[in-house]
Amino acid sequence: MADQENPDAANDASAKTILASAMAQVSDSIDAHFDAVLTVPDDARARLVEAMRHAAIGGGKRLRPLLVVASCDLFHVDRQSALRIGTAIEAIHVYSLVHDDLPCMDDDDMRRGKPTVHKAFDEATAVLAGDALHALAFEILADERTHHDPFVRCELVAELARASGQSGMAGGQMMDLAAESASFDLATVTRLQQMKTGALIAFCVEAGAIMGKLSPEGRAPLRGYARDIGLAFQIADDILDVEGDEARAGKALHKDAAAGKETFVSVMGLARAREQAHALVDQAIGHLAGFGREADLLRAIARFVIERDR
Amino acid sequence: MADQENPDAANDASAKTILASAMAQVSDSIDAHFDAVLTVPDDARARLVEAMRHAAIGGGKRLRPLLVVASCDLFHVDRQSALRIGTAIEAIHVYSLVHDDLPCMDDDDMRRGKPTVHKAFDEATAVLAGDALHALAFEILADERTHHDPFVRCELVAELARASGQSGMAGGQMMDLAAESASFDLATVTRLQQMKTGALIAFCVEAGAIMGKLSPEGRAPLRGYARDIGLAFQIADDILDVEGDEARAGKALHKDAAAGKETFVSVMGLARAREQAHALVDQAIGHLAGFGREADLLRAIARFVIERDR
Repeated sequence: MADQENPDAANDASAKTILASAMAQVSDSIDAHFDAVLTVPDDARARLVEAMRHAAIGGGKRLRPLLVVASCDLFHVDRQSALRIGTAIEAIHVYSLVHDDLPCMDDDDMRRGKPTVHKAFDEATAVLAGDALHALAFEILADERTHHDPFVRCELVAELARASGQSGMAGGQMMDLAAESASFDLATVTRLQQMKTGALIAFCVEAGAIMGKLSPEGRAPLRGYARDIGLAFQIADDILDVEGDEARAGKALHKDAAAGKETFVSVMGLARAREQAHALVDQAIGHLAGFGREADLLRAIARFVIERDR
Repeated sequence: MADQENPDAANDASAKTILASAMAQVSDSIDAHFDAVLTVPDDARARLVEAMRHAAIGGGKRLRPLLVVASCDLFHVDRQSALRIGTAIEAIHVYSLVHDDLPCMDDDDMRRGKPTVHKAFDEATAVLAGDALHALAFEILADERTHHDPFVRCELVAELARASGQSGMAGGQMMDLAAESASFDLATVTRLQQMKTGALIAFCVEAGAIMGKLSPEGRAPLRGYARDIGLAFQIADDILDVEGDEARAGKALHKDAAAGKETFVSVMGLARAREQAHALVDQAIGHLAGFGREADLLRAIARFVIERDR
């Protein structure tokens, strides 16, 4: 009732409904896709596939597949194809978490509320499960069910490889390791995060444009949106690391400060970081001004990125 | 002079010349390709790219790229494209060695006569360098310089992903880890090796057929050749592990017996293993009967596979 008298609140409630419903659908579909491609074989490889399932199925916000679905919606890409790309990107994201959690990297025991793969299995299995999920991502993208045009599939493969390799995610993780022993300024922390998490998020948003065969110039607003929510996401992550609840997050928090790692919060302070995250979300939504209701899900995701508690 | 009176010896000498010259050319080109794509950046990622260079440049037999070049020669594929595919496959091979050498896997200190990546750098850098080489392989394959037809590039990506993932190399490595605590029969050891090393070798040989757009039926002889030399290669590796010279091999040997791991030698005995390797090479060459001189390099590689000392 109150919502009818307050259009902002009504919009807000409707955005939350759109988001909650899309999130639930995407989460279920991603689990189903992983379940279908990760059949446990009846031989000594069983342990490998079980470890891949442990890492990939159940849990996680599925933010990346959700972004893929939202950007594909803009260009009327069919949902099944969008979910295949979402599964491929999630496979890359999950492999990076499995390797990142290893004792020689961040040494984490819990992830998404479950023991990490090397805890539930062992380190060697975790290395291999990550590697096999990495290969799986490209196998999914190159399959003709992802898009009938092989040119589009090749572009997806090339962009995902770039976003996850030495100039993208892996490069950012390397800088992140160096951050423990170096003192980075705001520009360097920003560049690090644009590689570590931003590149993959940008690919999620760009996936719709690639599938819709949008011209490179037409992609500019989506690029702007992706850059802004990528940074906002990471600032929110840094804030959560300071303020969050471990049980809700399903993983250990307060690790950055303990490791002496520079983050947006350590460089800008909590208040300015929060302000900056909000400004980035407004700016991200501004990039979508040329779109109508079909971009409502992208707008709702932008707000969610800084409102989430895990 | 003696060679003119003995055509077999002359053929043998000529095969060795063909092989030596191709090997030298391929090794130089693969190093040059890696050098070109692995430019060390002027920031905290430098360590990552240096680790990738340490692993990828210099050393190794480059058997896989050599097979790609030899199979591409059959179908008049241009050399630069063949070498791009060779570089991509070598990137996958090298990433698997880097991860395989980690303390939680085989725990090796030396590889190709140099300290392993985690020894020369550290474990976290080794994990990330392997991951970044993995992504690099797909980035190279999806690039239009590899083949003008995106359909061909997609097929290469899909086949490489399959050959290196859970049903190929990674699956075989998992079985290999299990081999330390299980007692495998010959059939299981064979299946393990067909996945662990055979799948990637098969892809090398098939690459020429994919690039030459050969029909699936036309590929049967190459598949047979690949299967046979893949097994012969692994038997030769197991023999080398027992009999080889560590300085020549550039890595630690005699590890299988120490780990209580079943190998072709432990299951068949040294004499029968040697016999079997020779029979497989003869059979591999038999598959090439339909080809003329253009398959001489493939024939020479088949013989080399069991005559090498590293």
